[in-house]
Amino acid sequence: MSAVTVACRQLAPVVGDLRGNRERARAAVREAVAAGARLVVLPELCTSGYVFRSAEEARTLAQPARGGALEEWAREAAAGDAVVVGGFCEVGDDGRLHNSAAIVDGTGVRAVYRKAHLWDREKLVFAPGDAPPPVVETALGRVGVVVCYDTSFPEFLRDLALRGADLVAVPTNNPVFPRREAQEPLEVVAIRAHAYFNRVFVACCDRCGHERGVDFLGASLVTDEQGWALSAAALGTPGLVLAECELERARDKRWNERNDVLADRRPALYLEVGADAAGR
Amino acid sequence: MSAVTVACRQLAPVVGDLRGNRERARAAVREAVAAGARLVVLPELCTSGYVFRSAEEARTLAQPARGGALEEWAREAAAGDAVVVGGFCEVGDDGRLHNSAAIVDGTGVRAVYRKAHLWDREKLVFAPGDAPPPVVETALGRVGVVVCYDTSFPEFLRDLALRGADLVAVPTNNPVFPRREAQEPLEVVAIRAHAYFNRVFVACCDRCGHERGVDFLGASLVTDEQGWALSAAALGTPGLVLAECELERARDKRWNERNDVLADRRPALYLEVGADAAGR
Repeated sequence: MSAVTVACRQLAPVVGDLRGNRERARAAVREAVAAGARLVVLPELCTSGYVFRSAEEARTLAQPARGGALEEWAREAAAGDAVVVGGFCEVGDDGRLHNSAAIVDGTGVRAVYRKAHLWDREKLVFAPGDAPPPVVETALGRVGVVVCYDTSFPEFLRDLALRGADLVAVPTNNPVFPRREAQEPLEVVAIRAHAYFNRVFVACCDRCGHERGVDFLGASLVTDEQGWALSAAALGTPGLVLAECELERARDKRWNERNDVLADRRPALYLEVGADAAGR
Repeated sequence: MSAVTVACRQLAPVVGDLRGNRERARAAVREAVAAGARLVVLPELCTSGYVFRSAEEARTLAQPARGGALEEWAREAAAGDAVVVGGFCEVGDDGRLHNSAAIVDGTGVRAVYRKAHLWDREKLVFAPGDAPPPVVETALGRVGVVVCYDTSFPEFLRDLALRGADLVAVPTNNPVFPRREAQEPLEVVAIRAHAYFNRVFVACCDRCGHERGVDFLGASLVTDEQGWALSAAALGTPGLVLAECELERARDKRWNERNDVLADRRPALYLEVGADAAGR
């Protein structure tokens, strides 16, 4: 079993500065690869910024699910023999906007995921995705992706684990909420819990900085498959989080000879969770 | 909205000492009520102890889902106008053993729940429960219950929230695992995450002490409906955890005017979680 270096490059995009953001993202991938990373995760909407004045403004910062920043990431991925996962503002072929994330490698765009659970004013700008998140078989292992508020839905991450993800990449823009300094932030607790519940690695790349009255938490971290943070950013500060991950460890879901985090599930007892699904 | 005092009495049962354990549990309820508690949670299997040598030994420490310790708890509940939730070793009418928890008030036993997800050697002793956990409408609010390893299954706690629980009581016996001292224990992370994901209060009463080569973590805590620990035990030490909880806050699932932790769910996208349920 060989370890792979996973990176989250916590940075501060600037809303509206498409050219500058793309350059910052490209440089971030190059920096991470130079530091040894084979998997590089960038924040949510890292090419556009987050706090749009309007849907119209977001539209001017959007791109299709090919070319543009994604082509730049693919070029960096090819040069570094790496996989890149990052968030961008997508305009679909039907003209609708999506808060999307791409999984890119040296061969190009492997998958684009459209955020399914939209947060607050995102609902005024974006159409929610109507497809489950992808799990992509990469040269490093099986990589799944969700975005930010998706992590408030444990069913969603469970589903990725049931579909074989070894690592879940989470491009994120966490706004700052009131918190209790003596306790780990809830955003960190959620990420660690998903790893723990599902025995998957999680690489959450948050942003930092300030936009139009919103401060961002900057709580990037990479967990192991047990739920421990292997490496974490200083809250709110730009930086490169690096962690060595033996991704194959996520294939063994056993706690011990009698327990397994997936096989021990009792779906017939998850009444309402099941009723929802049956009624779909 | 009025606050209610919720208590977890972390203690150390002694395996095999049925009489002593029952007296310790009774005294624990009385102590908590004297300290102002209206809801008292006791550990898993607090009348029998945990590390049985055999199913035969467990059988000698078991009782039906009525009378015995449960009658003592009901008497204390009546005297203190309280609700008690605690774990006990149950023998069913069919002779099978269960790792059970009871919700008891002054009127008697309101519900008995049989642990559905069994941990390690429990599988050699107990039959798993085949019913979902109850949500009981008490004088204080709607109280749900699960036991220990059940908290590794986020679908299970989600289900209690969907069925209206304001607070989930968690009688627990956490064995000690290797941990990273600078990070919150995974068992605490899981409890905080369930509160955060579901906007419910969680009162987890763990045990401490040592039995036949097993050390217990003693990580009792009471969270608010946002996922912050309101009060927590010193790890591994006997003690009374008390927290003021405005349980009605759990009825409001909104984050803001556009987000709601339950209404924002996208069950049609939880593919495998749904497939399991459809196949039951």
